Amino acid sequence: MTDRLEQGKRKFEELYGAGKADGLIAMQTGLAQDLARYGIEFNFGDIYSRPGLTLAQREMITLGALVALGGLEPQLRGHTRGALNAGLTPTEILETVIHVVQYAGFPRALNAIRVVTDTLIECGAEIPRP
Amino acid sequence: MTDRLEQGKRKFEELYGAGKADGLIAMQTGLAQDLARYGIEFNFGDIYSRPGLTLAQREMITLGALVALGGLEPQLRGHTRGALNAGLTPTEILETVIHVVQYAGFPRALNAIRVVTDTLIECGAEIPRP
Amino acid sequence: MTDRLEQGKRKFEELYGAGKADGLIAMQTGLAQDLARYGIEFNFGDIYSRPGLTLAQREMITLGALVALGGLEPQLRGHTRGALNAGLTPTEILETVIHVVQYAGFPRALNAIRVVTDTLIECGAEIPRP
Amino acid sequence: MTDRLEQGKRKFEELYGAGKADGLIAMQTGLAQDLARYGIEFNFGDIYSRPGLTLAQREMITLGALVALGGLEPQLRGHTRGALNAGLTPTEILETVIHVVQYAGFPRALNAIRVVTDTLIECGAEIPRP
Amino acid sequence: MTDRLEQGKRKFEELYGAGKADGLIAMQTGLAQDLARYGIEFNFGDIYSRPGLTLAQREMITLGALVALGGLEPQLRGHTRGALNAGLTPTEILETVIHVVQYAGFPRALNAIRVVTDTLIECGAEIPRP
Amino acid sequence: MTDRLEQGKRKFEELYGAGKADGLIAMQTGLAQDLARYGIEFNFGDIYSRPGLTLAQREMITLGALVALGGLEPQLRGHTRGALNAGLTPTEILETVIHVVQYAGFPRALNAIRVVTDTLIECGAEIPRP
Repeated sequence: MTDRLEQGKRKFEELYGAGKADGLIAMQTGLAQDLARYGIEFNFGDIYSRPGLTLAQREMITLGALVALGGLEPQLRGHTRGALNAGLTPTEILETVIHVVQYAGFPRALNAIRVVTDTLIECGAEIPRP
Repeated sequence: MTDRLEQGKRKFEELYGAGKADGLIAMQTGLAQDLARYGIEFNFGDIYSRPGLTLAQREMITLGALVALGGLEPQLRGHTRGALNAGLTPTEILETVIHVVQYAGFPRALNAIRVVTDTLIECGAEIPRP
Repeated sequence: MTDRLEQGKRKFEELYGAGKADGLIAMQTGLAQDLARYGIEFNFGDIYSRPGLTLAQREMITLGALVALGGLEPQLRGHTRGALNAGLTPTEILETVIHVVQYAGFPRALNAIRVVTDTLIECGAEIPRP
Repeated sequence: MTDRLEQGKRKFEELYGAGKADGLIAMQTGLAQDLARYGIEFNFGDIYSRPGLTLAQREMITLGALVALGGLEPQLRGHTRGALNAGLTPTEILETVIHVVQYAGFPRALNAIRVVTDTLIECGAEIPRP
Repeated sequence: MTDRLEQGKRKFEELYGAGKADGLIAMQTGLAQDLARYGIEFNFGDIYSRPGLTLAQREMITLGALVALGGLEPQLRGHTRGALNAGLTPTEILETVIHVVQYAGFPRALNAIRVVTDTLIECGAEIPRP
Repeated sequence: MTDRLEQGKRKFEELYGAGKADGLIAMQTGLAQDLARYGIEFNFGDIYSRPGLTLAQREMITLGALVALGGLEPQLRGHTRGALNAGLTPTEILETVIHVVQYAGFPRALNAIRVVTDTLIECGAEIPRP
């Protein structure tokens, strides 16, 4: 196991809990596991492990980018959990989605906030009132 | 209630029927209702209420933009109903989707026309022959 | 010359003036002329020549789709001219861009309206006041 | 039936098997069949029938473009089958998806490789090990 | 002048300096000024003025979304200045762009970081070493 | 220097010539050099160095993905050179762009083929006739 993979797993599990990194790779089949492994090595070993931004800031930027790209519901669900674990409040998470409406338009923002709100509810988070 | 919200609801209900604007907001939970409310205020109170284009023209442009952006099936379904209510014929609605194939490519246009045709059938519209 | 190419040129020149279709192809070099020719055959011979929508409606949908896709300044300039020639007023053209802000966000709409306004001015159109 | 339609059906059925082109059109309803027919005429009659690239190369480029555009699962499934039929190996197909991660990011590549792997398994292909 | 416009100008000028909001509108011509005004009213009067996120957090999310959408250089330049004025450090600004590479791919991230770095240099900011 | 960086430079220089990898990093300033270095390590050290596809196939897929994403002219220019160096013919390179028109639409394909053709001419390649 490379140092980057080890470092990536450590960072990933700091966000998602012990043993979760191997689970992520095991969710893929065959050659696709290489792509999942790159996700651990590069995304979590290289990028999330950089100094300069806190994990909470990184999850906030991630949510903003995912809303902007559109059509990435599985990732929105995963990173809503990651954002809570990084210490963002439900208000900060939902405000991040609302903030992006200016740049990505209403359809992407509305579809995203439905997924994010549902995930927050599944996680037992209290949903702030409007 | 602000004037823009009132104006937005009036315009929205001109397209979708009485009481529907509150239903749109009620479909969201907690803070996400603010985003739905902005959709009524800004999209329908500010933009759809502008002079210079008819409601039918606005629905036609909306369908074209949604096909181009891709992956926005819930909005395509809603605006197919809106387009019918604004007086566009099934032919005009389907031709709008076909027209965008030049700019957005076949996959987005084919996926969109399936959703639009199904919605037209649900609305009891007669589907024009090829 | 195929019937579709001939039909495409006729439709293209109805919008842009006599002799312009050959000019469009001549703007490309070598194999790329095949792609320009497909643009005449398919876009103008097949799609713009369909019944069911007027040329003015088609140009309106085109502008909406181009704003939504983003980054297509050369096409926005061309179709602003086409829209004028199809009989759309400067107000209708600019309102089309403003309408799409809800779906594609402010950056794409603002960058597009700058290009469209500049093209309208180059064409000698009177720019409507806010 | 035009020559391009006939040529398109021949090329499509070279990839997908006898009788499949009519099935593709029959999957759409009413006016949408025109769009499906253009897909046969233009995509398969004009483009896939061009010299200069093999069918296998064309399917490889198609997969790369579909991953990059995102949100096009039905097309990814269809072209994974087409790619196998054109003679690409499961390794080449999966490596194509992995290759695009650099340009389109991890979420689109990971969502695509799940769909592509599942389709390969449905086709009875042996999935290469990481 | 509406309250939202006034509020939007106040928030905009908190970021960009006194008198800048009118300058933004004056950069557009004719009807396009309505779109610029909506940008002040909705983006800065409604969204940036919400509680729940700091201005610095909002600028960070904005940069992430702009990198993800791609092709929005004028907005990247503007918001790099806004981010500095909101108190983000050059390191935080550049790390935000680097963070998005995982989601939007290398081409968009590399093109964005060139624009952002150049703007930071124009602003007299010290560029952190690798 | 890590093994991946060394491996990435070797692969990059196999495509672009001796000493070019350091030049790529030197084109960026400060922290942005980290992003350029990741491009060498991950894109060329990890991905382009994988078995399963030839360099020529990888450049073909890259061009297809870049056309689909849109607005990435600097990368299109670079990879047109890379594609020639990997042994693709001008015909294969131009046919790759033409092939993607079905999926990404005419505006992106036409803007891309202009850039690719110009780069081929700059490289002294003979442009195939239509």
